[in-house]
Amino acid sequence: MKVPYLYHGQDAFWVTPQQDQLLLSLASDADMLISTIFVRCEPDNEESLIDMERGELNGKLQFWHAKLPLNQDKAITHYCFKVMQNSRQWWLHGKGISPRMPGREYHFKYNSQHQPPAWVKSQVFYQIFPDRFCNSDPSLNVKSNEYYLQGTKRPTIAMEWGEKVSDHGKNGPNEFFGGDLAGIHDKFDYLQKLGITALYLNPIFKAPSNHKYDTSDYQTIDPHLGTNEQFAHMVEDLHDRGMKIMLDAVYNHTSVDHHWFDKYSKNSDNGLETKGAYGNPDSPYRDYYQFDGDGNDYIGWNGISTLPKLNFSNPEVQDYIYAGDEAVIKTWLRPPYNIDAWRFDVIHMLGEGAGAKNNAHYVKAFRDAAKSVNPDCYVLGEHFFEATSWLQGDQEDGAMNYYGFAHPIRAFFANKDIAYHNIQIEAEELVDWLNEARSKVPWLNQLSQLNQLDSHDTMRFLTMLDGDKETMQLALMMLFSYVGAPCIYYGTEVSLEGGQDPDNRRCFPWERTETPHTTFDYVQQLVELRKTRPSLQEGSIQWLFAEHKHFGFARTLNGETTLCLINNGSQAKTLEVPVWQLGIEQGQLTDLLNQDEWSVKDGVLSITLASKEGLLLAH
Amino acid sequence: MKVPYLYHGQDAFWVTPQQDQLLLSLASDADMLISTIFVRCEPDNEESLIDMERGELNGKLQFWHAKLPLNQDKAITHYCFKVMQNSRQWWLHGKGISPRMPGREYHFKYNSQHQPPAWVKSQVFYQIFPDRFCNSDPSLNVKSNEYYLQGTKRPTIAMEWGEKVSDHGKNGPNEFFGGDLAGIHDKFDYLQKLGITALYLNPIFKAPSNHKYDTSDYQTIDPHLGTNEQFAHMVEDLHDRGMKIMLDAVYNHTSVDHHWFDKYSKNSDNGLETKGAYGNPDSPYRDYYQFDGDGNDYIGWNGISTLPKLNFSNPEVQDYIYAGDEAVIKTWLRPPYNIDAWRFDVIHMLGEGAGAKNNAHYVKAFRDAAKSVNPDCYVLGEHFFEATSWLQGDQEDGAMNYYGFAHPIRAFFANKDIAYHNIQIEAEELVDWLNEARSKVPWLNQLSQLNQLDSHDTMRFLTMLDGDKETMQLALMMLFSYVGAPCIYYGTEVSLEGGQDPDNRRCFPWERTETPHTTFDYVQQLVELRKTRPSLQEGSIQWLFAEHKHFGFARTLNGETTLCLINNGSQAKTLEVPVWQLGIEQGQLTDLLNQDEWSVKDGVLSITLASKEGLLLAH
Repeated sequence: MKVPYLYHGQDAFWVTPQQDQLLLSLASDADMLISTIFVRCEPDNEESLIDMERGELNGKLQFWHAKLPLNQDKAITHYCFKVMQNSRQWWLHGKGISPRMPGREYHFKYNSQHQPPAWVKSQVFYQIFPDRFCNSDPSLNVKSNEYYLQGTKRPTIAMEWGEKVSDHGKNGPNEFFGGDLAGIHDKFDYLQKLGITALYLNPIFKAPSNHKYDTSDYQTIDPHLGTNEQFAHMVEDLHDRGMKIMLDAVYNHTSVDHHWFDKYSKNSDNGLETKGAYGNPDSPYRDYYQFDGDGNDYIGWNGISTLPKLNFSNPEVQDYIYAGDEAVIKTWLRPPYNIDAWRFDVIHMLGEGAGAKNNAHYVKAFRDAAKSVNPDCYVLGEHFFEATSWLQGDQEDGAMNYYGFAHPIRAFFANKDIAYHNIQIEAEELVDWLNEARSKVPWLNQLSQLNQLDSHDTMRFLTMLDGDKETMQLALMMLFSYVGAPCIYYGTEVSLEGGQDPDNRRCFPWERTETPHTTFDYVQQLVELRKTRPSLQEGSIQWLFAEHKHFGFARTLNGETTLCLINNGSQAKTLEVPVWQLGIEQGQLTDLLNQDEWSVKDGVLSITLASKEGLLLAH
Repeated sequence: MKVPYLYHGQDAFWVTPQQDQLLLSLASDADMLISTIFVRCEPDNEESLIDMERGELNGKLQFWHAKLPLNQDKAITHYCFKVMQNSRQWWLHGKGISPRMPGREYHFKYNSQHQPPAWVKSQVFYQIFPDRFCNSDPSLNVKSNEYYLQGTKRPTIAMEWGEKVSDHGKNGPNEFFGGDLAGIHDKFDYLQKLGITALYLNPIFKAPSNHKYDTSDYQTIDPHLGTNEQFAHMVEDLHDRGMKIMLDAVYNHTSVDHHWFDKYSKNSDNGLETKGAYGNPDSPYRDYYQFDGDGNDYIGWNGISTLPKLNFSNPEVQDYIYAGDEAVIKTWLRPPYNIDAWRFDVIHMLGEGAGAKNNAHYVKAFRDAAKSVNPDCYVLGEHFFEATSWLQGDQEDGAMNYYGFAHPIRAFFANKDIAYHNIQIEAEELVDWLNEARSKVPWLNQLSQLNQLDSHDTMRFLTMLDGDKETMQLALMMLFSYVGAPCIYYGTEVSLEGGQDPDNRRCFPWERTETPHTTFDYVQQLVELRKTRPSLQEGSIQWLFAEHKHFGFARTLNGETTLCLINNGSQAKTLEVPVWQLGIEQGQLTDLLNQDEWSVKDGVLSITLASKEGLLLAH
């Protein structure tokens, strides 16, 4: 039973000016005998079928149109298409085409009440781990033995720039290389040369470790990185350059050194009485955390005792973090800091109790707090796995897209899953996975996902590939062609390698920027294409083929078409690409990376992809 | 890439006595090289992997075991299995086996806080449309021209038993055949002979139409059917026989004749002033409905003006329906009525406004009200389409299982969808559909679904098959073998035919019960098997093969195995059934319908199914 060609593009101009209906179009193979196409929707939770009008014929494509009223009593309007032939029917939905009605999770979705900021989808993000990016003010450097990391009882160690980082479990969080805000600021020109438009900084608030996911003061930039004033100045310059900045918000837990908790000062010799919650049932902060009665047992994040979980059922915690006028979520979005986005660390794990009870309530509250100060703020959630339920519009604008991008890309190109276990998937399964993850969230949230190949929490992609730069180029091509905002982890553009944490946080090798660098040039070219081709930023996506080791898709927007064709196999592959599905019957396609020309005949592009070749073609 | 054999059965004895962990078992092909199997769960919304222990070897099956702690801060525990081989991995989940982690909706689910009543899964239900089942008290008959159905302006018409019902749109709701409670009561012996254990009655409360989905008094049995006292007596006898009863609760809307609304009496000549909401903005009942300001526009169910929707945001409606001590949901569950179950009509459509706003809140409230009076009450929802979100445990115990049973069975055997459009699916798609629908809800709710081939809202299945009794037998075999409680629509057992509403509500042809009837005998046999084989009531399900027109599965429980093998093709089909997957290596299988014996050799059953043959085999 051959699946026919049917396509529905969700482009940017589909809501009527009154914002009360969606203008929907569908393209079918003009040779396919169709009696009726219905839009299936659920205005009152019950099926309603709307007849589509048969529209224009364009080459081999027959177009169909309908107006779909948006649901009035709920934020999300679900819909899919029922295509009637004489003796059978086909359903077109977010994940593909089926001979029967798809499960509701795959219906197309539009959230009329909650939408991500429009600016996100056109950004190219760059993630910086501050201690390892650039050291411009050595006077701020953490010194060896300057202090102890409580809990681990390890003293700080000052390292030389570029020195090998320790194995995890030995040292790690107590090694400091001296990167700072001044260093980041000094590299704005470099980042702009690469084409970066938005920065994502790992935590910069006061915290004892080098990674700073153990905050001891939410109000203050860590003095070893810089000052609040310096940060404000840096953001001002960034904004003057038309760039954006996202900070890391770690509100699930604090450091044991936070004065609310204060686990160790009692045991020190300073003789001062403390009001911290630990060991002090009468502390005014006792209920900021989750203790078991009057004893010393408390809930640590992931069972880690150095990271006590905050208790969000406490109104004082709510006020401090999101609800109060001066809540930290709001403060950093306001002048003089004016950050543009929050990345909320392990956001799915916070709430009440060890099991994140009432999590959705708090995530919505975080969102509302952020948007109340800056409606254009980007609310990003960190999720190592599927984030569907957080991405329906009313919680997050986007997620660190491990589930819907990093995991499938890593599985296909590097044969590793997120736990570094071996995995093998074919191109068909890759596409199925990508489509499944995308289709479960509204289209505008799909565009606002943060796509990464790797991060401070994973082995670097190049290292996972054992340094195979050919395959790395294919993965980078996907990063810049696929749906969602691309984010480069610092150093990727100069082929920085690194194993698992903390080896994935090596110092930026600035010496590699002093001479021409193939990867830098390649990434720069991809960034430029991403920024100049709106189809790559917000165009709808159509798969053209997917089999075994090769696949191809197109992004289209307002007549601009960009094709991405990839052969991950070790042998050349000749393909007949059905570009008639994009409305292309004849003419030339241009290779965007080297300006070669390719001819289309009768709606088909005959092309041979070399082993490990990826092409970006324009029409 | 051949998918290996892996299986996880969810049987009835898997929760530890402390109710704090699940005992999980998995069977793998003993020839499959496996390094590790993990149970993947999300205790705090983040992945956690639990190593399974390699257990006993049984023939070709290798067993694995693990204990899974139940989530503490949320009702549902999700889990699936990650099976590690040397160079690849497989995931076992509710919908099947994948080479990568499945979407969260397909993970196995256990709801530790909300479970359906244990009695439901072992019932055989029988649905009765009261006006058409049996007339034992002609004195109650509605007379011609006794009253008008307001809105349609049609007078009642008294019909002769067995006379042809009108076409829809002409008459219909105003034709009365005289069926009554006394008639139902008189047929208890007949129903018990068939083997029925539970009745589902279409609405019996006071209402002008014959279908009574237009209630005018929620407290009173319709006088043309009987009295409240008579009903109480009937239920008492039913319970004495060990049977159960479910009533139809129509709380989304009322009749326009309900005294709260009272659309027509104002216009009548009786001269009485009314306090009904219609045309009376000052009515104390005005806010029971959803009027547009002070005018006469109101929201009718599905746009039908004769069925004004109740306004559940009104606390008085809440009190009357579910919240008050004397709420109608509670009243009928209490003595002297003691009903065992509610079937809530169009439950997904009720709430606030036209679009069912806050629906989930009200459904939970309905459940809580019912369970507060009788914790063992079965809460069933009517949903013509997917009901996944209502079936997670905290809303409904089960649904009228159109989406997960009637639709796929109808598509496969009758090539029709629920809108009577042509559809074609192969056995592979049938199994995919059945598995998808099941896997999205917790196992105990799967067992408590109400499976039907047809109902008062659909064409009768036999008629959809153009009277093909061979295929009807296959569909009936599925009804009694599949997961979920079977429900027969009255008359099916004597091959009653009928087109779409109202032809699907023909009078029961009692003359067909006077002589032996093949279908009656067949259904009686299936009912008996269902009741005597616990594996059919609550055994886990394993698919053995599915291709083109044929498929087979087994239900297993505590060593009892029942196989169901079906060939819906027009040609005989020889099969090699891998019964080693059920732990069967050698020996005989017995045909449960005719006692034939079949030999198993080396774990394989070689068998030829004739055209349109279905077999139930026991081990």
